[in-house]
Amino acid sequence: MNFSIIIYIIGYVLKIEGLLMLAPTFVGVFYGEKAWIGFFIMAVATFLFGTLLSFKKPKNQVFYAKEGFVSVPLSWIFASIFGCLPFVINGDIPRFVDAFFEIVSGFTTTGSSILTDVEVVSHASLFWRSFSHWIGGMGILVFILSVLPLTSGATMHLMRAESPGPQVDKVVPKVKDTSIMLYIIYTAMTVLQIILLIIGNTDIFDAVCIALGTAGTGGFAVKNSGLAGYSPYVQYVVAIFMILFGVNFNVYVLLIKKHLRQALRVEEARWYFAIIVLAVALITINTKYLFPTLELAFRTALFQVGSIITTTGYATYDFSIYYPLFSQLILIFLMFIGACAGSTGGGIKVSRIIIIAKTVRDELARIIHPRAVKKVRSEGKTLNHSVLRSVNIFLMSYLGVFAVSLLLISLDNFDFTTSFTAVTATINNIGPGLGKVGPCGNFSEFSDFSKLVFCFNMIAGRLEILPMLVMINPRTWSHPFKYKKHKAVNKIS
Amino acid sequence: MNFSIIIYIIGYVLKIEGLLMLAPTFVGVFYGEKAWIGFFIMAVATFLFGTLLSFKKPKNQVFYAKEGFVSVPLSWIFASIFGCLPFVINGDIPRFVDAFFEIVSGFTTTGSSILTDVEVVSHASLFWRSFSHWIGGMGILVFILSVLPLTSGATMHLMRAESPGPQVDKVVPKVKDTSIMLYIIYTAMTVLQIILLIIGNTDIFDAVCIALGTAGTGGFAVKNSGLAGYSPYVQYVVAIFMILFGVNFNVYVLLIKKHLRQALRVEEARWYFAIIVLAVALITINTKYLFPTLELAFRTALFQVGSIITTTGYATYDFSIYYPLFSQLILIFLMFIGACAGSTGGGIKVSRIIIIAKTVRDELARIIHPRAVKKVRSEGKTLNHSVLRSVNIFLMSYLGVFAVSLLLISLDNFDFTTSFTAVTATINNIGPGLGKVGPCGNFSEFSDFSKLVFCFNMIAGRLEILPMLVMINPRTWSHPFKYKKHKAVNKIS
Repeated sequence: MNFSIIIYIIGYVLKIEGLLMLAPTFVGVFYGEKAWIGFFIMAVATFLFGTLLSFKKPKNQVFYAKEGFVSVPLSWIFASIFGCLPFVINGDIPRFVDAFFEIVSGFTTTGSSILTDVEVVSHASLFWRSFSHWIGGMGILVFILSVLPLTSGATMHLMRAESPGPQVDKVVPKVKDTSIMLYIIYTAMTVLQIILLIIGNTDIFDAVCIALGTAGTGGFAVKNSGLAGYSPYVQYVVAIFMILFGVNFNVYVLLIKKHLRQALRVEEARWYFAIIVLAVALITINTKYLFPTLELAFRTALFQVGSIITTTGYATYDFSIYYPLFSQLILIFLMFIGACAGSTGGGIKVSRIIIIAKTVRDELARIIHPRAVKKVRSEGKTLNHSVLRSVNIFLMSYLGVFAVSLLLISLDNFDFTTSFTAVTATINNIGPGLGKVGPCGNFSEFSDFSKLVFCFNMIAGRLEILPMLVMINPRTWSHPFKYKKHKAVNKIS
Repeated sequence: MNFSIIIYIIGYVLKIEGLLMLAPTFVGVFYGEKAWIGFFIMAVATFLFGTLLSFKKPKNQVFYAKEGFVSVPLSWIFASIFGCLPFVINGDIPRFVDAFFEIVSGFTTTGSSILTDVEVVSHASLFWRSFSHWIGGMGILVFILSVLPLTSGATMHLMRAESPGPQVDKVVPKVKDTSIMLYIIYTAMTVLQIILLIIGNTDIFDAVCIALGTAGTGGFAVKNSGLAGYSPYVQYVVAIFMILFGVNFNVYVLLIKKHLRQALRVEEARWYFAIIVLAVALITINTKYLFPTLELAFRTALFQVGSIITTTGYATYDFSIYYPLFSQLILIFLMFIGACAGSTGGGIKVSRIIIIAKTVRDELARIIHPRAVKKVRSEGKTLNHSVLRSVNIFLMSYLGVFAVSLLLISLDNFDFTTSFTAVTATINNIGPGLGKVGPCGNFSEFSDFSKLVFCFNMIAGRLEILPMLVMINPRTWSHPFKYKKHKAVNKIS
């Protein structure tokens, strides 16, 4: 294990985080709140500590997959430890474990909260919560990568660890160009949403926070009633932008490059929209008896479906209480399906579901017509053994982490629905579940131990499981000096 | 599709079933119940109809995997249709859908029931319910195969369709020898259990029914209180025999052949016992506050764990109400894990869980030490790509069927816990779940549509999913005449 480079990367992440904490500091100053002090102290402290760690670029640049898989989750954990301290200092969330849960939920774009009343929290802290969604949405490291002076091999390993989903396409050849282009799209869409919300008479602070949470598919709200209190126009804008941020960003890159036909052919996006249309239709039909008008049933369905499939977690309606089980289950399934790979959303991802469905379909065809064996194809390309293998391994480790964490948090002895959907909501980075953790509930009643398990789930879900498993594997940390003998190679192995 | 041979096989199955129905007829006569009439009528009718269908051995012996995958589920469905009619005729279960559910639950060794009061049912019907477990336990077709005059290729395809689990070992080279040896072990163990139960002062009728249900890992009880009313001795005997019937039968074959060392080395059985010991220990510790003595806590835990992991479903205690969530979840996980492959139990099977766990462990090792790549091994042999692939496809189609049926039965709008565990209990062939379908509940409140979905699940679970998916796939039934051109080949493709 090359410790020096891991420390260097963590230091770099903290340095950037320190700078980003100046934003909530200004918000606090602007609103004349004392909360700016906590943010300012931590901005300076985080920046200095990060500078200390990344002061000297390490000579030993050995960087294998292992180093990538360890430095990414560690970066997220350190960023969360420093990022949660302003909440503690300001007294908005006095207990460390609660504050840590809240900021992990922020950075991982989950949106699960331990706050029982968000309206008493300072503007600075509310902004920092929503801003953490925006930062986490595109991946802390995609941003870092566009500025970090590392070799391309190291960059690749870091990228793989932060988002190891099935990327059939590589749209832009160079990593730096990709991340810069992605950030331009991301920022432009966020600004557009803020403008549209302000046009709809939304308070500017609310508009900014809502848009940051939408872009990151996070879901922290600034009102206790979530998005229920806003006008139908605002709800439609948010619903549409949630869905747009759940699309594979490759589609936008293709659109910008004017490859319209290619963009329309992206299989994952087509399935993604098909699933949304189907789910909204089924839920609208199933729940129209609950609402005075069809429009309200439709809007509620659209908002909830958009919010859940993109794993955002905003709510305009307490579906955990009022929806019939059929509609609840559709939402629970969407929680697992998740958004497109290469979007800011979480979950298993539509592309993996497509690959899984096609593999089964292919096997049935093989039994029915053994002479007409076809290869599983996705996005027009034959999927090779290693893609199928990685999807399978993802699914299996996902189910394993799911089962173990469900067992661990069951020691709190809540009901099955609450416990099951609390794990579902955190590992898929959604936010709300059913029961006590429904859209109008929160995670405050769980024990500290369970909260830490949820934190693990949120980070594991965001990094697509394997990096966290590598990090906690004792074998990763054995023989730390073994690799020093090797030369500095960066080949992907 | 070679219809003539499929019809021939179904006919043969019905002929045997007709003969087997003479057993409940005798029970009815013995107890002086009118119920013998219904069984006698259906015994004759089923035998005659079966004889009609299998009168002439078809000339066209073309038999591909497709024919195997279709004739097995169809045989189970036809056997269930004929097998449930005595219940309807006798009036023990007057409605056809309920009777069909009950006998499907019997043949698939599930043990879920729609009866709200089993103590008013005739002895003949109670015996037939328990006997159907015993028949289904070893697989209707394993039995048929030992008498059916088919080519070895056809036999292989039928075997694959009825139990396509990961069979790393082939213990006995010839299929007929295998099935005869298995039936000898099966019968001997059943008889031994009956004797031990009678020694414990159990009523002879109860002893026979309980033993038949244990051997098939079924779980239909003959008392409303399940096994709770019997003595601790009886409960221990049943618990131990349930666990023994969940062991891979290869172990017994090895023991009979005096390969003691090999028998002790069967990896699946070792893991199976390890899981049981761990689960019993955890539940005993977790629930000891509920019981006056540690022995009672231990016995209750042992019985429930043995019952659930082997997917039998007998109960001595309503764990769905009294156990804390942690212990309930352990039982729910055991529902999914299931028994050993090559046993009479259901579920995902321990061997598949081992393969899944090893695949993930292997992938982590590959990331951590890329130069030390090992192959995934099980039972001392390297698992090749096709075994891993078949495990993955099983798991994916399993989850797919699970999700779709959960959605379909959710239209009945029961609570999430009931609905989720009702699907779990049927697809894994267990019997009870939690909530309304807990050990003291039953499936009677579900709609007819849901009951049919559960029937599908039970058969799908028993046949390990793929055969049912092939059967309902429209492509299986298209171009029925296409295959007539081919020569009669039986190679496994």
